[in-house]
Amino acid sequence: MYQIGDSIECFGIGVVLRSENPAFQVGDHLHGSHPFQEYFVLQQTDSLIKIHNEYHLPWSVFVGIAGLSGKTAYFGWKEHSRAKKGEVAFVTSGAGAVGSFVIQLAKRDGMRVIASAGSDDKVEFLKELGADVAFNYKTTKTSEILAKEGPINVYWDNVGGETLEAALHAAAKHARFIECGMISTYDGSSQSISNLISIIPKEISINGFVTTTLSPKYLETFEREVPALVASKELMYREVVTRGLENAEVAFDDFIKGALTGKSVVIVADE
Amino acid sequence: MYQIGDSIECFGIGVVLRSENPAFQVGDHLHGSHPFQEYFVLQQTDSLIKIHNEYHLPWSVFVGIAGLSGKTAYFGWKEHSRAKKGEVAFVTSGAGAVGSFVIQLAKRDGMRVIASAGSDDKVEFLKELGADVAFNYKTTKTSEILAKEGPINVYWDNVGGETLEAALHAAAKHARFIECGMISTYDGSSQSISNLISIIPKEISINGFVTTTLSPKYLETFEREVPALVASKELMYREVVTRGLENAEVAFDDFIKGALTGKSVVIVADE
Repeated sequence: MYQIGDSIECFGIGVVLRSENPAFQVGDHLHGSHPFQEYFVLQQTDSLIKIHNEYHLPWSVFVGIAGLSGKTAYFGWKEHSRAKKGEVAFVTSGAGAVGSFVIQLAKRDGMRVIASAGSDDKVEFLKELGADVAFNYKTTKTSEILAKEGPINVYWDNVGGETLEAALHAAAKHARFIECGMISTYDGSSQSISNLISIIPKEISINGFVTTTLSPKYLETFEREVPALVASKELMYREVVTRGLENAEVAFDDFIKGALTGKSVVIVADE
Repeated sequence: MYQIGDSIECFGIGVVLRSENPAFQVGDHLHGSHPFQEYFVLQQTDSLIKIHNEYHLPWSVFVGIAGLSGKTAYFGWKEHSRAKKGEVAFVTSGAGAVGSFVIQLAKRDGMRVIASAGSDDKVEFLKELGADVAFNYKTTKTSEILAKEGPINVYWDNVGGETLEAALHAAAKHARFIECGMISTYDGSSQSISNLISIIPKEISINGFVTTTLSPKYLETFEREVPALVASKELMYREVVTRGLENAEVAFDDFIKGALTGKSVVIVADE
């Protein structure tokens, strides 16, 4: 249980400065849930993974597209999309660290992609990622876009609420809904989904998932494929880098407000 | 499109009195969507199935547990339950034609079964069917029963609304929700499901299904197994028989009001 005054933890990469554990050498880069501290001593090392970085990618990539965000997109997509060439996917929060990878996964599977984000700058990024239809949900009604560009076969949900309702309305028979997040409900508000019943005649499957549960099934393929595709620039990513522990709070605030495109990375210290 | 004055159609069994189609002989019993008429002439015969009835069951069984109701229960359960021995299933409308079969399917798969219905008489029937926990949802709160007897691994939903909300709250990790109906919303009311987000951390899958779509996958096994199990009394069913076309309206009204236990059968004419 978190106590006020404790360090906040977050997935990150740390460098080993001294080790009394034979599994880890000085200079190793370890991925794990690290505290927001410049230096720390770890006793519990079970969840640490040594990053080999054979393609010499920036280390920040391993908290983004080659890290938890990437795994979330990749594992959820592989497990639940049942993607078919020529089908249509609708991806919400498409300019975020997860959504931007989902768009690329859908395109790699030969799907037509509709993607939404919350600013015109982000919409430009959606187009760069390959989205066939990209729109700003703050200035264009999702339901109108989907009525024109749907029906949709796969819905990647980061939003919930009325966007989920619009997606149910625009869903094709046998659509797959992949539930990654419902940010519209994170303030505790309860939203009415008036058309949940459409999952019966449309034979829709709605699937919640947790990245760590799917890890044993997909991690090996992910680690073999994703860093290589980032190195060859076949996969794109964006990140917003904040330098210095003292600025982490602002970075978090910007993230929550949706002010950032791509992954928010705090660099506590360079090597 | 239905026009006032047209016959209403319903799944039923008809007997061939005269045939100009070599596929059907006088005396054959044919299952299909038949009009509520004492006599009728069929031109379109594609969807008709000849019932062989090798166990000499009452013909009404073939509109109930060995007919569409039974197929709905059986196909939906086989496709989506991923039943595991020792797990817990919660079945709503457990005294209905579909739910009463679902309870028995769950028990045959070695599950512990919680079942609900809307009268004390029906609750007695749930116990006869083998339900481990049976309750009247009109006099006992579903959420309280589930808090005590859950968590649940499979939810058979005939109801939607606040019952679905209670099931989400009581769901175990990786629970499977089988969406057969949402009778609480059939009056067009939109209900707020406040905890839909729990499908993410609990990794729940919610599956809508349509019986006819699953037919090619399960019909053969169904036809081999179900009439035999009814004949050997390993499967139980109940039906409420209404005689005479002129009473069909009352039978339908009773069905909608939930006044009946088991399958409502209208016998338009004996042979």
